[in-house]
Amino acid sequence: MEQARFVIESADVESMAKESGLSLLQLLTSLVKSTQDLARPPISKYHVGAVGLGSDGRVFLGVNLEFPGLPLHHSVHAEQFLITNAAIHGSTRLRYIAVSSAPCGHCRQFMQEIRGASDINILVTSTENEGDNREDVAFRPMSHFLPQRFGPDDLLNKDVPLLLEPHHNGLTFSDDHDEINGEANRCYSNDSVVADYNKLKYAALEAANKSHAPSEGKGLEVHLTPKNQGSFLGWVKVQRRLGRFKALSKFQGRFKALKFFALFFFSYSIVVNCHII
Amino acid sequence: MEQARFVIESADVESMAKESGLSLLQLLTSLVKSTQDLARPPISKYHVGAVGLGSDGRVFLGVNLEFPGLPLHHSVHAEQFLITNAAIHGSTRLRYIAVSSAPCGHCRQFMQEIRGASDINILVTSTENEGDNREDVAFRPMSHFLPQRFGPDDLLNKDVPLLLEPHHNGLTFSDDHDEINGEANRCYSNDSVVADYNKLKYAALEAANKSHAPSEGKGLEVHLTPKNQGSFLGWVKVQRRLGRFKALSKFQGRFKALKFFALFFFSYSIVVNCHII
Repeated sequence: MEQARFVIESADVESMAKESGLSLLQLLTSLVKSTQDLARPPISKYHVGAVGLGSDGRVFLGVNLEFPGLPLHHSVHAEQFLITNAAIHGSTRLRYIAVSSAPCGHCRQFMQEIRGASDINILVTSTENEGDNREDVAFRPMSHFLPQRFGPDDLLNKDVPLLLEPHHNGLTFSDDHDEINGEANRCYSNDSVVADYNKLKYAALEAANKSHAPSEGKGLEVHLTPKNQGSFLGWVKVQRRLGRFKALSKFQGRFKALKFFALFFFSYSIVVNCHII
Repeated sequence: MEQARFVIESADVESMAKESGLSLLQLLTSLVKSTQDLARPPISKYHVGAVGLGSDGRVFLGVNLEFPGLPLHHSVHAEQFLITNAAIHGSTRLRYIAVSSAPCGHCRQFMQEIRGASDINILVTSTENEGDNREDVAFRPMSHFLPQRFGPDDLLNKDVPLLLEPHHNGLTFSDDHDEINGEANRCYSNDSVVADYNKLKYAALEAANKSHAPSEGKGLEVHLTPKNQGSFLGWVKVQRRLGRFKALSKFQGRFKALKFFALFFFSYSIVVNCHII
């Protein structure tokens, strides 16, 4: 199976538009259907594809992912996948998003958390088939989808970095870092596993320093606590296989890969969400 | 401290309106400010109060709750508190909601998940102070707040019960129920704790049978796995103190109570979300 691509470089975007005789925005819309095929929604069976154009000319794809047996909040909506994908690849602005179904309220809020959200324009392709109102299938601004919005400017100072904006949270390991380290050494006598643990620990800290939790303030510490050998080794395996933050770009669209992806997300969530105290 | 009330009976609502010379909708709006005082947002310091009128004439209050040290998704927004509160008290329809700040996208979606969401009308009191547009402070329908919405009718059959609709998920204990039970007996030699465990187990099953997870289908089983004596006893303590689903009505507005409330939510989430497989 050919490896799925979730980012299209700007030069390729231009070539594709030229070859197909489409405008950039028409191209964006035309990619939605094939993107839907990459979705993995085993629970709802509802495939969603989202295609976004960054201000740097790159195109980012997003699909919905569902994980049977994990809590609902581990599901990823297509628009959230797209925005996370753009963030991982260093894109700081999204201008246009074409998506197969109307974004849910949660996703609208997710988009509202981006600096300059009012400049984002969205087109919902599913309404094209209804055909009763051509206006509904045009790109429309965020203010159409989330009028009288509640956004980061209601809660945060203007200089607080938002989603997609580069930042470093200034987190460090807590005082009992050495103790935890010692515990890891006791748990895992194999030197290569201890080395993996150390790599993982710093990768987790680096990820937490890039995490977006603006309301939490800066006085946070990261605790990385090994749980038990089974789950920890499973995690290292995921880490080895996919690498930190590489899951999206290396994701191969196979269910086996998806299971690793789920583990990756789950483990990442344990470090960055649960063990920040 | 007087115990905070989160439900006002319809007769009391009528008396209050009569005594104050306000219409029902004016009364709703007038209660928002005092409701905000009941919020517990130690992270954001942003107090939100929401006041809803059910079709049965009762008024339900909701406030935002934040829990330092717990993942973000354990936060409760005022509108979600209000809707959960209405659900717990058997109200099947909400008609009017007055809220201190514009609902975020997530809450708009939460409201959209209710049957007859299009009949819900919302007023945002914070815009009253801006004074530049009187129309903004009127009650407006959900379609104003979530136009071109994505809702349950996009995913579910029409006969699937929605939020606020009475239902029973038909869940039972899984085949290894006896084994888990045996494990609980081994872990807790004290008979009264085992009795608590059994009560808790059936309470959890009953709660899971009322839980709203329409996309998960009906082929679910509940696993209730004791983790370790410490956390389990903590949980039983919460259970004893607040009772299942009594947290909202017995909530006394003190931080100590809030901590139990957090534990309650957290434990509940473990049973109903994480251990449904």
